Amino acid sequence: MTGAAGGGPAGPGTIDLNADAGEGYGRWTLGDDDALLAVVTSANLACGFHAGDPDVLRYTCARAAERGVVVGAQVSYRDLAGFGRRYVAVPRDSLTNDVLYQIGGLAAMCRAAGIGVRYVKPHGALYHRAVHDPEHALAIVDAVRAYDPGLAVLCQAGSELARCAAEAGLRVVREGFVDRGYTAAGTLVPRSDPGALLTDPVQAGSRAVRMVTEGTVGAVSGEEVSLVVDSLCVHGDTPGAVHVARAVRSALETAGVRVSAFAS
Amino acid sequence: MTGAAGGGPAGPGTIDLNADAGEGYGRWTLGDDDALLAVVTSANLACGFHAGDPDVLRYTCARAAERGVVVGAQVSYRDLAGFGRRYVAVPRDSLTNDVLYQIGGLAAMCRAAGIGVRYVKPHGALYHRAVHDPEHALAIVDAVRAYDPGLAVLCQAGSELARCAAEAGLRVVREGFVDRGYTAAGTLVPRSDPGALLTDPVQAGSRAVRMVTEGTVGAVSGEEVSLVVDSLCVHGDTPGAVHVARAVRSALETAGVRVSAFAS
Amino acid sequence: MTGAAGGGPAGPGTIDLNADAGEGYGRWTLGDDDALLAVVTSANLACGFHAGDPDVLRYTCARAAERGVVVGAQVSYRDLAGFGRRYVAVPRDSLTNDVLYQIGGLAAMCRAAGIGVRYVKPHGALYHRAVHDPEHALAIVDAVRAYDPGLAVLCQAGSELARCAAEAGLRVVREGFVDRGYTAAGTLVPRSDPGALLTDPVQAGSRAVRMVTEGTVGAVSGEEVSLVVDSLCVHGDTPGAVHVARAVRSALETAGVRVSAFAS
Amino acid sequence: MTGAAGGGPAGPGTIDLNADAGEGYGRWTLGDDDALLAVVTSANLACGFHAGDPDVLRYTCARAAERGVVVGAQVSYRDLAGFGRRYVAVPRDSLTNDVLYQIGGLAAMCRAAGIGVRYVKPHGALYHRAVHDPEHALAIVDAVRAYDPGLAVLCQAGSELARCAAEAGLRVVREGFVDRGYTAAGTLVPRSDPGALLTDPVQAGSRAVRMVTEGTVGAVSGEEVSLVVDSLCVHGDTPGAVHVARAVRSALETAGVRVSAFAS
Repeated sequence: MTGAAGGGPAGPGTIDLNADAGEGYGRWTLGDDDALLAVVTSANLACGFHAGDPDVLRYTCARAAERGVVVGAQVSYRDLAGFGRRYVAVPRDSLTNDVLYQIGGLAAMCRAAGIGVRYVKPHGALYHRAVHDPEHALAIVDAVRAYDPGLAVLCQAGSELARCAAEAGLRVVREGFVDRGYTAAGTLVPRSDPGALLTDPVQAGSRAVRMVTEGTVGAVSGEEVSLVVDSLCVHGDTPGAVHVARAVRSALETAGVRVSAFAS
Repeated sequence: MTGAAGGGPAGPGTIDLNADAGEGYGRWTLGDDDALLAVVTSANLACGFHAGDPDVLRYTCARAAERGVVVGAQVSYRDLAGFGRRYVAVPRDSLTNDVLYQIGGLAAMCRAAGIGVRYVKPHGALYHRAVHDPEHALAIVDAVRAYDPGLAVLCQAGSELARCAAEAGLRVVREGFVDRGYTAAGTLVPRSDPGALLTDPVQAGSRAVRMVTEGTVGAVSGEEVSLVVDSLCVHGDTPGAVHVARAVRSALETAGVRVSAFAS
Repeated sequence: MTGAAGGGPAGPGTIDLNADAGEGYGRWTLGDDDALLAVVTSANLACGFHAGDPDVLRYTCARAAERGVVVGAQVSYRDLAGFGRRYVAVPRDSLTNDVLYQIGGLAAMCRAAGIGVRYVKPHGALYHRAVHDPEHALAIVDAVRAYDPGLAVLCQAGSELARCAAEAGLRVVREGFVDRGYTAAGTLVPRSDPGALLTDPVQAGSRAVRMVTEGTVGAVSGEEVSLVVDSLCVHGDTPGAVHVARAVRSALETAGVRVSAFAS
Repeated sequence: MTGAAGGGPAGPGTIDLNADAGEGYGRWTLGDDDALLAVVTSANLACGFHAGDPDVLRYTCARAAERGVVVGAQVSYRDLAGFGRRYVAVPRDSLTNDVLYQIGGLAAMCRAAGIGVRYVKPHGALYHRAVHDPEHALAIVDAVRAYDPGLAVLCQAGSELARCAAEAGLRVVREGFVDRGYTAAGTLVPRSDPGALLTDPVQAGSRAVRMVTEGTVGAVSGEEVSLVVDSLCVHGDTPGAVHVARAVRSALETAGVRVSAFAS
C-alpha cells in the first residue's frame, strides 16, 4: 500500500502472504491448493484464460471462503496451451476487455461462495510485460477502474503497472518474492540464470523476515538492496513449494510479524 | 411473468420484444446488432461459450446501454465450433458452473457500461434441452440462484425450465416466437419440417398481435392454440430478420400494444 | 483381427498391449508416458481435442519411435475442458471431419519422427458412444476410410464400431481390459458400480493370461464369460497403473504368451 | 521460384495467383470462397489455429480439388479470438510443432479430397514476424523440412523466411500484392498509413501486369521499385475483393501472361 508504507516498516509489522491457486483445468491438476490455502492470506485465482475452468474456480473460491483467504483475480493473456507464459501482442482495448471478462467470471464464483474479488494481479507473461510496457499496464488499470476502482492491484514494486495504477488512484500492493533471486537493481534474476530460484525453506524464511522487518533483500551479487513490500509471494506449483510457504509463515510469526491479508 | 399473466391478457396490454445479439467472435460478425437494438426491448447477449468474445460483449453492452435495451445473459454449452447448437452431456454441477462463469463475464461488461444483467436465457441446444431435461434445467436454475435470485429466467412457456425456475421462486418470463411455426400441441415445428420458419414480415406481425392480444397462435395444422407469453422473440441472424422485427414492432404498436421491456 | 482370431486362440499365442499416452496439455502432465512406453506395444496418442498439444504429441511420437512402440490416433469429441468424457451430439459428417483432422495432426508428428499412424481408437465418451450408436461409429469408419483404409480400428469386441468397421472392410482389433470388471454379458461394469476397477497387479496379470490363453474372463457375478481379444488395454493415468501394466506383461510372458504389436 | 526467376522475367511469362480461403469457423463465414476458387490457381487454406474448422477445411479442399486449384497450408499462431493477427511469443520449437500439426490437419482433408498439400504460407502476424525474425522463420522452415522437404514456402520476397527457406534447400515462391501499396524500399505500406490498400480493380490489374512483365511496382512515393515475384496474392475477405481478383486475372491474360499454379 504505497501510502501506508511510505516511510518504510517500523517494527515487525504486518505482512500479507499471497500464492497462485486454482491452476488446474478439466482433468488436469496443478499444485496443492488445499495445503496452500491453509498457509496464505491471499489467493491469486486463475480465471480461465491460462488455467482455471469454472469447476476449478467454483471449488477454489469455496475453499478460500471457508478459510477466510482473500481472493484476487489472476488475469492472463488468452493462452491455455502456453499457460499464459507467452507474450501476446493484443491491442490495449482488447486486453482491457479480456481482463474485465476474467474478473467477471471469477466474481460470479466468488459471489456463489459469499465473498468478493478484492484485487487483480496479472499472471505470467502479462505480469512481466506490465513491468515495463505502459500500454499493457494501462489496459489492466482501465479494466480495474471500469469494474471497481475499489479493487487493489497486486504487482511488482517499481513496475510500470505500479506507477500507472497509483496515478489512476488505485490501491497498489507491492509484492516481493521469497523464492526468487534478486539483482542489485532490485529486479528478479531471470529464470534461466543461476540463483534464480531458491528452494531452501530456511533461507526463504529468513529472507522473508528481512524483507518485512528491514525492508531489504540480499542480491545474488552480494549487495543489500532496499525493497519495500506489502505482500510476499510464495509459489505453489513446484515440488516442496508448500514446505517453503509454511517455513516462511512460521519464520515471520516467530519474528513477531503478523501475517494478515492486506484486504479485509 | 407467471403470476401477473395468470389470467391471460386483458386488452392490448404490454409486451417485451427480445432478440439474440453479440453473436460475433473475433474477426467474424453475425447479424446486424445495431439495427436490432433499435427495435427490441431486451437483448440476449452471447457470453463467450458459443459466440461473443470480450470485445464483442463490451461493444454490444455499450450500445444496449445507450439505447436503454435491457441485457440478459444468453448462456450456452461450451461449444464455439458448433455455435452451441450441439447437446453436450455435461454433468449438472459443471453446467451450473459454466453458466455462472458466463453470467459473470457478461456482468463485468455490463458493469463497465453502467448497467446490469437482468435475466438469463439458455441458447441453442441448451435451450432445447432445458425444455424437457430437469437436470440441465436445474443446473441453470442453480446458477441463477447462486448468482442473483433477482434475475429473471427467459424461456419457453410450458418447459421444464419454466417449471423448475418457478418452483425455485425465480421470475419466469415466457416467450413466444413470431417467426417459427407451432404444432397443435403448442411446441415449435422442428427446423427440418415444413412450416418451421416464417419469413413474411406481415404474417409475423399479425401473429405477434394475436399472441399478445388474444393469447393464441395458429398451428401449422390449422388449429388455434392457446399461448400466453410475456415476451416475443425475433431472430437477427437470418436475411431479412431485421425487417421482420420492425414489422412485428410496428404491427404491435398499431394494435395499441405497448412494447416495453419486462425488466425495468 | 476378426478373421485370424475367429476360431479362438490355440496355445499361448501372441497379444498386443495398448495404453493411452500423450495426455498432457501445455503446462499440465498426466500419467508416466516414459514408463508406459517401456511396457506396451501400442500407444493410443491423444490428438489435441481432449488432450495432447503439439509439443506433447511431438515428444511422445519421438519416444514411441525410439522404443518401437506402434502409434495409433486416439480421437475424441472436441472437449478439452471435459477431457473428452462428455458426449457431444455432433452431426455425423462433422464428426468424420473432426476425426480426420485429428488423425492428420498426429500423422504429421509421426512423420517427423519417421513413423506412421497405424490405427485409430476412439477416446472417452466417443469410445462408449460408438459401442451402440451406428451414426457415430460410422463417422469414425468414414474418416478412417477417407484417410487410409489400411489403418486398423481398435475397439471393444462386439461393439457397433467393430461391426461397422468390419462391414467397411477395415481391420478390426478387439480389445479387452485387464483393469476393469466385466458383467456376465461381457460388457464393462459401469465406473460407478462396485467391481468396476481392478487395482491389484497380480489379479490383473492372471486375468490377462486367461483372456489370452483361454479366451475367457471372470464376471463380477461369478460366471465365466467368453471374450476373444486381439489386444489388452492397460491404463496409465491412475496411481499404480504402471505397476499393473508391468505385472500384466510379466504374467503374460511367464505364461509363454508373446507380447507383440498387432501392427508391425 | 528463386532459381527460375533469377534472370528476371523475359516476355509476358507465367504467374501464379494465390488467395486465402477457408477462413470461416463454425457458424461464421468469411469471404466468398466459391467465387475466389474460380479465379485463383493456388489457395492458402486456414488450418484451424486462426480460422478453418474441420468442416470448412473438408468443404474447401473438395472445392479446390474440383477446380484444380493447388492447396497450401496457411499456418498461424494459435489465436482464434484474434484471427492470427497478434504476435505470440511462442518458443521456436513449439512453433515448429504448431505448424506441423496444422499442416497435418489440412493434409488429412486434402487426402480425403484426393489431393495433397503443396506449399506452406504463414498467416497474419506470423507472416509479418517471419519477414524479420529468424527464430520464427526457422520454426516454419523446420516444420516444412520435418513434414516434407518437397513443399514450397510461399512468402514475401526479401524476407528472412525466404532467406532461411532457401538456405535450407526448400523451394521459395516469392509473392507480390496487387491490392497493397509499396514503399520505395519494396516493403508493404503499413495498413494504418495512407495508400496501404488499393481497391480499384483497374489499377490492381495494371499493377499486376507490370509486376509480372516488367518486374517493377510503383511505390506510394512515386518511385519505380524492382520486385521479382512468382505469385500474386489477391485478398478475398474485403468487399469487392472478388472483383479485384477477376480484374487482375483478366488484365494478365489480356497482356498475354499465362496464369498457372507454381506447383502442378
